[in-house]
Amino acid sequence: MVTTFEKKELKKKSENLSEWYTDVVLKARIADYAPVKGCMVIRPYGYALWEGVQEALNRMIKAAGVENAYFPLFIPHSLLEKEKEHVKGFSPELAVVTVGGGEKLKDPLVVRPTSETIMYAMYAKWIHSWRDLPLLINQWNNVVRWEKRTYLFLRTTEFLWQEGHTAHETEDEAMEMVMKALDWYRQIYEDYFAMPVIWGRKSESEKFAGAKATFAIEALMPDGKALQAGTSHNLGQNFSRPFEISFQTRAGKTDFVWQTSWGFSTRSLGGLFLTHGDDNGLILPPQIAPIQVVIVPIYKGDERKGKLLDYCGELRDALVGQGMRVRLDDRDSQSVGRKFNDWEVKGIPARLEIGVTEMEHRTVTIARRDTGEKLTAARKDFLPVIEKTLKDIQSSLFSAAKVFLEANTRNADTLVEFEEIMKSVRGLIRAFWCEEASCEAAIKEKTKAATRCLPLDAKQEKGTCIHCGKPATHRWLFGQSY
Amino acid sequence: MVTTFEKKELKKKSENLSEWYTDVVLKARIADYAPVKGCMVIRPYGYALWEGVQEALNRMIKAAGVENAYFPLFIPHSLLEKEKEHVKGFSPELAVVTVGGGEKLKDPLVVRPTSETIMYAMYAKWIHSWRDLPLLINQWNNVVRWEKRTYLFLRTTEFLWQEGHTAHETEDEAMEMVMKALDWYRQIYEDYFAMPVIWGRKSESEKFAGAKATFAIEALMPDGKALQAGTSHNLGQNFSRPFEISFQTRAGKTDFVWQTSWGFSTRSLGGLFLTHGDDNGLILPPQIAPIQVVIVPIYKGDERKGKLLDYCGELRDALVGQGMRVRLDDRDSQSVGRKFNDWEVKGIPARLEIGVTEMEHRTVTIARRDTGEKLTAARKDFLPVIEKTLKDIQSSLFSAAKVFLEANTRNADTLVEFEEIMKSVRGLIRAFWCEEASCEAAIKEKTKAATRCLPLDAKQEKGTCIHCGKPATHRWLFGQSY
Repeated sequence: MVTTFEKKELKKKSENLSEWYTDVVLKARIADYAPVKGCMVIRPYGYALWEGVQEALNRMIKAAGVENAYFPLFIPHSLLEKEKEHVKGFSPELAVVTVGGGEKLKDPLVVRPTSETIMYAMYAKWIHSWRDLPLLINQWNNVVRWEKRTYLFLRTTEFLWQEGHTAHETEDEAMEMVMKALDWYRQIYEDYFAMPVIWGRKSESEKFAGAKATFAIEALMPDGKALQAGTSHNLGQNFSRPFEISFQTRAGKTDFVWQTSWGFSTRSLGGLFLTHGDDNGLILPPQIAPIQVVIVPIYKGDERKGKLLDYCGELRDALVGQGMRVRLDDRDSQSVGRKFNDWEVKGIPARLEIGVTEMEHRTVTIARRDTGEKLTAARKDFLPVIEKTLKDIQSSLFSAAKVFLEANTRNADTLVEFEEIMKSVRGLIRAFWCEEASCEAAIKEKTKAATRCLPLDAKQEKGTCIHCGKPATHRWLFGQSY
Repeated sequence: MVTTFEKKELKKKSENLSEWYTDVVLKARIADYAPVKGCMVIRPYGYALWEGVQEALNRMIKAAGVENAYFPLFIPHSLLEKEKEHVKGFSPELAVVTVGGGEKLKDPLVVRPTSETIMYAMYAKWIHSWRDLPLLINQWNNVVRWEKRTYLFLRTTEFLWQEGHTAHETEDEAMEMVMKALDWYRQIYEDYFAMPVIWGRKSESEKFAGAKATFAIEALMPDGKALQAGTSHNLGQNFSRPFEISFQTRAGKTDFVWQTSWGFSTRSLGGLFLTHGDDNGLILPPQIAPIQVVIVPIYKGDERKGKLLDYCGELRDALVGQGMRVRLDDRDSQSVGRKFNDWEVKGIPARLEIGVTEMEHRTVTIARRDTGEKLTAARKDFLPVIEKTLKDIQSSLFSAAKVFLEANTRNADTLVEFEEIMKSVRGLIRAFWCEEASCEAAIKEKTKAATRCLPLDAKQEKGTCIHCGKPATHRWLFGQSY
C-alpha cells in the first residue's frame, strides 16, 4: 500500500513543524485518527516500525534472562489503591469499566494505565525465598491513560509499549537492572533511530508515581522542545511493602524485595519522525526502516518491460540475499514520478532507479533519500555500494542530529539568561537549581521549561540556584516538554 | 523458573481430566489465576508457547501479503450497533467503559470483543477503488468477552489472539482467503501441536454473529468433548453495506467490498495441553515446545562438577548450533530427582541425563518424555539421534491423537443410537440432519451434542434427519462442546 497525492500538498517542515508532522504521518500512512476520541490507528507501515523496535528490544531483553509474559488488562480499583502515591498519580487519567456482561460491577475495573499493581499481587504469591529471585518479567501490551486531544503517537489515550518488572534480593542489584534497561533504550534511540540522547535522573516532582527514583532518556526535537520516551524506575521497597512481597534471605531472615519497572512506548516513534525528515516527507534511518531499499523500474511502452522487470527482480533477490529489506515497485497503475514521490514521503533511505540504460550497461543508479545525491554502480559490485550507502545515511542522520543537540544545549547562569534563551531558540538548558520543588515550579511558570533530568554525567560543582540564589551542587537539564 | 513440588501431589489425568488439566497448567507454571474475576495470568512458560504460535502464523500471514497493524481497544457503542446481527451476538458479553478521565462518558466505550466494527469504519475511509484492493490486514491483540467462571485458557474474559480482516473485489477471492486462513490454522494444529483436526462449515445457528458463513477447526479432546479454536468467516457484504465500504470496480461501476475475518486465540493452547500429557504432566510436541531438550548433569560431590558441566555445556552448544531450543539445568539448589520431576511436568520432549559415565565414555543418555524410553548415543553422532528422536516424538504424538480421533468418530443412523453414544463414550458423531434449526436445538437438548460443522470432505448422500425423519443430504458432525 502506498500513498497517492501531489507533493505540493505536503506541508513544509521548515515552516510549521507541528502541521508538517501530522500531515506526513497521515500521508505516509503511518497512522490515522480513529473514530474514538483520543485514539489512533497504527497502519501497517507504522506498525512495521514498532515490530522493528520489538525485535531489537526483545533480543536485548531475552539475552539478559528477562522473560515475556501476559497479565490482565483489568485492575480492580481496590488493588490500585494499595500504593498511595501511585493511585494519586494515575487517578485523573483512568478509564473505568463499570458494566460487565450486562451487570453493574461492585468493584469497578480500571483499564491498566501501567501494570505494577496487578503484577505485584501475583509476585507476592510467587516469591517466597531468595531462590525465587531475581524474578525478571516483561510484557508487550496496550495501556490506557485518558487524553482528550490526540497528537499522533505523542499523545494518545491508548498506546503500545513494553513494561519490564523485576524483583531482586538487594537494591544494588535492582539499580543495576534499572541502568541496564535505560541503556537498552539508549541503544534503540542511538543505534536504530539515529537520535543522540541525554540520560539522567528525573527530579522528585517529575518521577514516576510510586517510584523511589526515575531515570529517563531525553531527546531534543527540531522545534527546541524536549521529548521523553523511555523511563526506568528504581521502585525501592515502595511496592513490595504494601503488596507484601517478602522473601527469606540467604541469611535466613525475612526482607521485602527490591523492585524495578521500565517502559518504552510507541511515543518514541513520534520522536523519530520529528527528528529526521524534510519538506519532502519522512527520512527513516536504515537500521529501523521497514523498507531500506525501493527499486523503481523506469520504462515506456511494454516491449522492454519484461526484461527490465527481470533485471529488477535479480537486483532485489541479490539485496534480499544480503539480509536487506527491499521492495520492488512494479505497479502499473502509477507513474514513475508518483512512485518517487510516494517513497520519498515514506522516507525509504535508498531508491534504485532502473531504466533501459541501467539494464543494458548492467549498472544500478542509487538515489539517497537524505541528501538527494545520485550515484551509479556496476551490477557486479553494487551490493557493497548499497551497504555502504545505508551505513553512511545512518551515521550522517545521527551526526546531523548530534550537531543540532549540541548546538542547542546551552548553559544559563542567571534566570534572565535562561528566560531569553527560552523566548528565542528554546533547546535544552543546563542550569544550577537548589532542588527545591518551589523553585522548580516557579522556573517552569516563568519560562515553560521544566527540569528534564540530572544528566548521568553531570559533575558536582559549586553554584547558586538561578531562581532563589541558594547553593546548588549540579547543573540540571531544563527544557520545554512535548 | 521451574516448579518445585512432589509428583505425588499431581492429579491423575486418567482419573479426572478436568482436575488434572487445571492442576498441571498451574504446576507447570503455564498460567495462574488473576485477582480479577474471569481472568488469568499467562506466565513466561505459557507465553513462550504463544510466541511460538505467533512466529509460525506470522510467517504464513506475511508470506501471503497480509500486513500487521493496530486498531483501538475501545469501540463507541454507536459504531458497534451498525451491523444488527453482530451487536445482538456480542451484547451479552460486553465490558463497558462509562468513566474516562474522571468524567462520565456520553457515548460509552465497549472494550473490543472483536474488531470488525472499528476496523471497517476505517476501511470505508481508505478504500475507494479496485486499486486499493485487496486490503489485507491482521492484528495481534487482546479482546474481552465477559465470563464469570475461569477455565484456564478455555474460558477467560480476556484472551489473546490474532484477527485478520480482508476486503476484496469479488466473493470468490474472499472465499479463497477464508480457506487460506483456515488452512494456516490446520497447519498450526497438525504440524506444530500434533493434533489432527476436522475442518468444516458451521451451521446457521453456530456461525459468527454477522457472518454469511463461518468455517472452523474442530479437535477432539480425551474426554470425548470437541474443542473449536480457529474460525474463518466469509462476511459477504454484510458489513460493507452498513459501513458503506464501496469501491469503483474495474468496469467503472460501484460495488461494496467482499470481506473476510479470521481468528486464532490462546484458547487453542488449552486444547494442546488436554490432548497430549499423562499422569506425570504435560507432553509438549517438539515443534512448539519452548524447550525441546533439557540437559540434567548428575554428580555427587563437587570434585567432578566442573568437568561435567563443561561437557554438558559442550553438548548444549552443539544442539543450539543445530537451531534446537535447549536448557542446561545447572541449579545447585535442587536434587536430580526434583529436576527430573520439574521438567516432566513441564513436558520437555527430550531429557539428556549426563553423569560421570557419559562424560568418561563421551556418550549421551536420552530419555523420551512421551514413552519414557532411554537410549544412549555416542557424543560424535548424538546430534542426528536427537533430531530423529524429536521427529519421532512429534509424529508419534500425532499418530496417537489420530488413532484416538478416528476411533471416536462414529456414524449414528438413529437418534437412539446417537443418544447411546453420547451417554457412554461421547466423541464425535456423523449423522444426517435436515438443517432445520429446530431439529438442531432438539438434538442438543436431548443429547448435549450440538452440530460442530459440516466437514469439508462430507459427501452428498441420501439420508433422513435423525430427529424429524425428513430428507437430509449430508452427515453433519456433532459433539459436546467445551
